[in-house]
Amino acid sequence: MRIRVVAPVIATPLVPLVFEGYRAAARADTDMSLATLDSGPASIESRFDEALAVPDVVAKVVAAEQDGIDAAIIDCMGDPGLEAARERVSIPVIGPAEASMHVACMLGHRFSVVTVLDTLIPAFDHHALRMGLTHRMASVRTVGIPVLDLEDHTRLVEAAIDQSLKAVEYDGAHVIVLGCTGMAGVAQALLGGLAQHQVTDVPVIDPTVLAVKMAEALVDLQLRHSKITYPTPPDKKIVGY
Amino acid sequence: MRIRVVAPVIATPLVPLVFEGYRAAARADTDMSLATLDSGPASIESRFDEALAVPDVVAKVVAAEQDGIDAAIIDCMGDPGLEAARERVSIPVIGPAEASMHVACMLGHRFSVVTVLDTLIPAFDHHALRMGLTHRMASVRTVGIPVLDLEDHTRLVEAAIDQSLKAVEYDGAHVIVLGCTGMAGVAQALLGGLAQHQVTDVPVIDPTVLAVKMAEALVDLQLRHSKITYPTPPDKKIVGY
Amino acid sequence: MRIRVVAPVIATPLVPLVFEGYRAAARADTDMSLATLDSGPASIESRFDEALAVPDVVAKVVAAEQDGIDAAIIDCMGDPGLEAARERVSIPVIGPAEASMHVACMLGHRFSVVTVLDTLIPAFDHHALRMGLTHRMASVRTVGIPVLDLEDHTRLVEAAIDQSLKAVEYDGAHVIVLGCTGMAGVAQALLGGLAQHQVTDVPVIDPTVLAVKMAEALVDLQLRHSKITYPTPPDKKIVGY
Amino acid sequence: MRIRVVAPVIATPLVPLVFEGYRAAARADTDMSLATLDSGPASIESRFDEALAVPDVVAKVVAAEQDGIDAAIIDCMGDPGLEAARERVSIPVIGPAEASMHVACMLGHRFSVVTVLDTLIPAFDHHALRMGLTHRMASVRTVGIPVLDLEDHTRLVEAAIDQSLKAVEYDGAHVIVLGCTGMAGVAQALLGGLAQHQVTDVPVIDPTVLAVKMAEALVDLQLRHSKITYPTPPDKKIVGY
Amino acid sequence: MRIRVVAPVIATPLVPLVFEGYRAAARADTDMSLATLDSGPASIESRFDEALAVPDVVAKVVAAEQDGIDAAIIDCMGDPGLEAARERVSIPVIGPAEASMHVACMLGHRFSVVTVLDTLIPAFDHHALRMGLTHRMASVRTVGIPVLDLEDHTRLVEAAIDQSLKAVEYDGAHVIVLGCTGMAGVAQALLGGLAQHQVTDVPVIDPTVLAVKMAEALVDLQLRHSKITYPTPPDKKIVGY
Amino acid sequence: MRIRVVAPVIATPLVPLVFEGYRAAARADTDMSLATLDSGPASIESRFDEALAVPDVVAKVVAAEQDGIDAAIIDCMGDPGLEAARERVSIPVIGPAEASMHVACMLGHRFSVVTVLDTLIPAFDHHALRMGLTHRMASVRTVGIPVLDLEDHTRLVEAAIDQSLKAVEYDGAHVIVLGCTGMAGVAQALLGGLAQHQVTDVPVIDPTVLAVKMAEALVDLQLRHSKITYPTPPDKKIVGY
Repeated sequence: MRIRVVAPVIATPLVPLVFEGYRAAARADTDMSLATLDSGPASIESRFDEALAVPDVVAKVVAAEQDGIDAAIIDCMGDPGLEAARERVSIPVIGPAEASMHVACMLGHRFSVVTVLDTLIPAFDHHALRMGLTHRMASVRTVGIPVLDLEDHTRLVEAAIDQSLKAVEYDGAHVIVLGCTGMAGVAQALLGGLAQHQVTDVPVIDPTVLAVKMAEALVDLQLRHSKITYPTPPDKKIVGY
Repeated sequence: MRIRVVAPVIATPLVPLVFEGYRAAARADTDMSLATLDSGPASIESRFDEALAVPDVVAKVVAAEQDGIDAAIIDCMGDPGLEAARERVSIPVIGPAEASMHVACMLGHRFSVVTVLDTLIPAFDHHALRMGLTHRMASVRTVGIPVLDLEDHTRLVEAAIDQSLKAVEYDGAHVIVLGCTGMAGVAQALLGGLAQHQVTDVPVIDPTVLAVKMAEALVDLQLRHSKITYPTPPDKKIVGY
Repeated sequence: MRIRVVAPVIATPLVPLVFEGYRAAARADTDMSLATLDSGPASIESRFDEALAVPDVVAKVVAAEQDGIDAAIIDCMGDPGLEAARERVSIPVIGPAEASMHVACMLGHRFSVVTVLDTLIPAFDHHALRMGLTHRMASVRTVGIPVLDLEDHTRLVEAAIDQSLKAVEYDGAHVIVLGCTGMAGVAQALLGGLAQHQVTDVPVIDPTVLAVKMAEALVDLQLRHSKITYPTPPDKKIVGY
Repeated sequence: MRIRVVAPVIATPLVPLVFEGYRAAARADTDMSLATLDSGPASIESRFDEALAVPDVVAKVVAAEQDGIDAAIIDCMGDPGLEAARERVSIPVIGPAEASMHVACMLGHRFSVVTVLDTLIPAFDHHALRMGLTHRMASVRTVGIPVLDLEDHTRLVEAAIDQSLKAVEYDGAHVIVLGCTGMAGVAQALLGGLAQHQVTDVPVIDPTVLAVKMAEALVDLQLRHSKITYPTPPDKKIVGY
Repeated sequence: MRIRVVAPVIATPLVPLVFEGYRAAARADTDMSLATLDSGPASIESRFDEALAVPDVVAKVVAAEQDGIDAAIIDCMGDPGLEAARERVSIPVIGPAEASMHVACMLGHRFSVVTVLDTLIPAFDHHALRMGLTHRMASVRTVGIPVLDLEDHTRLVEAAIDQSLKAVEYDGAHVIVLGCTGMAGVAQALLGGLAQHQVTDVPVIDPTVLAVKMAEALVDLQLRHSKITYPTPPDKKIVGY
Repeated sequence: MRIRVVAPVIATPLVPLVFEGYRAAARADTDMSLATLDSGPASIESRFDEALAVPDVVAKVVAAEQDGIDAAIIDCMGDPGLEAARERVSIPVIGPAEASMHVACMLGHRFSVVTVLDTLIPAFDHHALRMGLTHRMASVRTVGIPVLDLEDHTRLVEAAIDQSLKAVEYDGAHVIVLGCTGMAGVAQALLGGLAQHQVTDVPVIDPTVLAVKMAEALVDLQLRHSKITYPTPPDKKIVGY
């Protein structure tokens, strides 16, 4: 099986680090590849950043299908370009936010998202609304670290432990969802930190590795997205792409 | 007052025709101007089309603010780029779908959307979900006419009368919302046609002229969008725009 | 254009003061007039007060239509008599609460209402429920000032600043809606006060001036309420009115 | 125990007939009394009719409490004046619609309302919205008979059977709620008629007798409405009442 | 009338104490009887406990119908076996949680549940979700006392007063629902305690006595559950029961 | 990895046939085992059947954990015992209905369930309510074949094609979910049949194979259910188990 991770950003040092997490989660017989954008932002921290990423994200997903790839993962919790990409291809396209939030609902009654910056909170409000899961999202909390500084795992883990404890104690969270794919690889350290505070009953979802497993599952099952929900776009004149 | 209509498409013969409808709806002292895209599709009939339009839509809204414009209207019922644009500017940005669907809820219990093609139905499902208005949208019906053929008003009006009557009789619609800004100018003919079938109790919302009135109202009231919901994006490296 | 403000109270000193706010918001070519009740309470601070106001509110709206008025505004955030009045007339009737809460949803994800007395909180709960906007109303907060004492703007503004700051910080409000038409005219002072606390990203909706703009917009657009939702009442014997 | 039925209409021949149904449902030791309005409409078939009834409904409920009555029932499926009356008194006040719709949810997944005229459909939409039960109301169907003609039980029962069968077959109803207190006394005939069509698995709720049982239950339990939801109105000047 | 209380537990000293509360609430002409389980747990404090209780609960409800009983009450706020039992019999079966939560909605806008242990909170989340009443349940609070220690009314009442005050002050509760049938008999003491803290406007629902009144009401009204929602199970081979 | 399928029924010829489908879906390195009940029904076609199955289902899941199994699947679309089992163990327990309905929401806007008998429709209503997905379930349709007759695949496929076409055309389904694990193995034939009617844009979810993939994914990810939502039950006296 071949899975393509489409990072909705131009090449930065963080991207291959995060990709290693995706690759490590794949089965031995799954071939993982990475695409970064030619045009787009260096990180996604707003809907504006998403908007600039989406055209090339779709192009990279289309290229993946043309390369014979079996499934694509959009490497961002904003799920940028998820719907447009699904319209253009027949292979499964995984949005880590959509997958994480629905799987969180299978694991417990209410989840909290722990993400990077306050500017991203409205995007999660929007996600919950469009999925009809508003009443199951206990809160969105932030560590206050820009995406490109996420390589400092010590600082990240410390802040994530603090926010996760608050989500459980004050917001009623039963499950924690990491709210940025750039947080890949810290779930175990976060679970360890929570355990030191006697919180051992809360699962932590790392959306990157979850996305790999969902992609593998859909390919194994020969499932793809509904083309009634995501119909093929009509042909037309397009300028500049 | 100065209002800029941003057509999320490249220049086509339909755009200035629709713009005349916007201009005619404006108050005498409102200066209306039009921007079309340098990069983007010729019409919006899918989320893919929207994706290709959005970067330049945002650029055109930013340019409008720099030109001293008081409010911008995105000329499409997909509201493409609405959130990204609001993040980048402080002037009000009107999405015709958002405005029409909320005003429809002020006029009656349930509305139906009559739009162009089946490929657009999922976008309205999505709109209703994100606004939390799913239970107030009675149905989405389509006339089966591509956007660029909408100039043929005779065919359009006939099909719109047929679908509106079905929305009222079978779907429980109390209000009709025209589901494409390219349908601008047919509301009166549609009302006339409905009256010939003894249906005189259903308002028809033309989203283009409504958007002008909402823009004028927000400017008059010095209201703009919440910058908590639409925070200014952090600065960062961006390639290709 | 001619708009009639129907105050759902008997004549009191506050009414003309508030009416000046309505008049000031109108366009130069809009003729504003005021009606007060012959029968009813001196202020609206409960659903009981509303009940006593409604019969004469409807009568005054009917009289407005007979006078050739183009639209009516019910001058109260309880929207008393909104549905009954719409059944009796064909001109648009604006409820400031309905209009404010829907427009608030166009400006941000969640709004809080800042109103006068705790006795009014259930009415806003009811408003949110009937509009299906419960999950978008972050909170209802009160300044603890009876309606007829609202003329003391210094005290009102100070309390409104305090409650608005709490709504933003503790309740997650992105937009503030003034919860009593008697608070007309304090929005600018409230915005100024918030700015002194470095809160400049939250719009404040004054429902009186918003209602004027919605009335002007609907008249311009020749839109009226759906007569399926608000059918004309059957004729019958009525005693005492 | 003493229960007062407050008919929200002036005296008509239908009122005492319906009252007999209330009386027959009461326990032997329950003293039933009837109040009709001095001011108000002859029947309730619109929100306008409700508006004219409400002030005197509240007065009659207040009088009931002063008479030492233990609970009041508002004899109408519009529940007119329910909230205002509850604010003014400490005894339980029963709204037949509120009681019927919640009890219907205890008996099955989805209920349909079978009421008199199309003009009343929006009131049931409103009821469902304000109770948060929209997704449990399968439909509202009408027999097309004005309230004051409901004495013709033959015609009423025949039409109610027809509409109930359609509610079950086409709308997915599991429970039928009679949508007008003037339909009192036809539930058994309706059940018999349904049985002739092999439909024996659908309960039929007669809101009048249900209201008596809810009133008896609340009095027995010494339960009254929350005064946080229904706070006592502040005193003030009132003219004309 | 004959009502059977089915305690979903094996015989313990608490059961007859609670049963006395049920019996005391019944009308003079209502014959109350009690069944306890032959197989099952000593108390219900988890969904696992419920699971072990359900088969014999259903058997005891079936036996009640065969004994000519008119209605059954399942003596637990988990409503264990409610749906299965309703499938098997034609007499009304009352679930105290379902009845209490719907009646709470008739008494005020939002209720809080005060129950025994944190392990039961998810069951109330589940109840609210399945009834569609999530947005009307303000909170679930716990007194931290195991079911079999509830006989110590002094400790129970003190803790219930504390939690109820917090529910009103911090969670926005308008109505309190006792969240365990083992709390039967403390409602008056709780009301008295709240009054000592000047909280007199909040009704307290004791689900045991409420269940008796709902059972009496449904029997009086000859209402039973919809057999579309609760169809009779097909016959089949069953081992071990 | 070791996965245990717990069939919530006593041994019947259908069980091993269905189990072959589970086994075929597993990865080469996944060891699949099967447990059937010692006490319980021969098939699950009602909530009563579920009730009789649950105690032994939980016992079999507990035994699986004691055997060192990594995850358990409850082989029934009623998800019987899902919550009780999760309380008792720390390994993931998969409910095919919960997994299928959430994954269906990742594949399209609305899904329809095609299940065996009308008696099961209320269980799916209940599932959708408890997951908060009511507005995303387009319909539940039935093939009218008892579970133990499902071995006749010709008849089953024909009826499933018919019902799926109706779900798409009349109910607005975008995704089909097979509503009984006894339908395992017919998804490909159903897709083929739909294709013969030119319906190629609708994915069909077979809940058995999906459950295997979800189990493998959760084990790979070391994710288990939240113990806040599913707390370990307190110890107590239990009779008869």
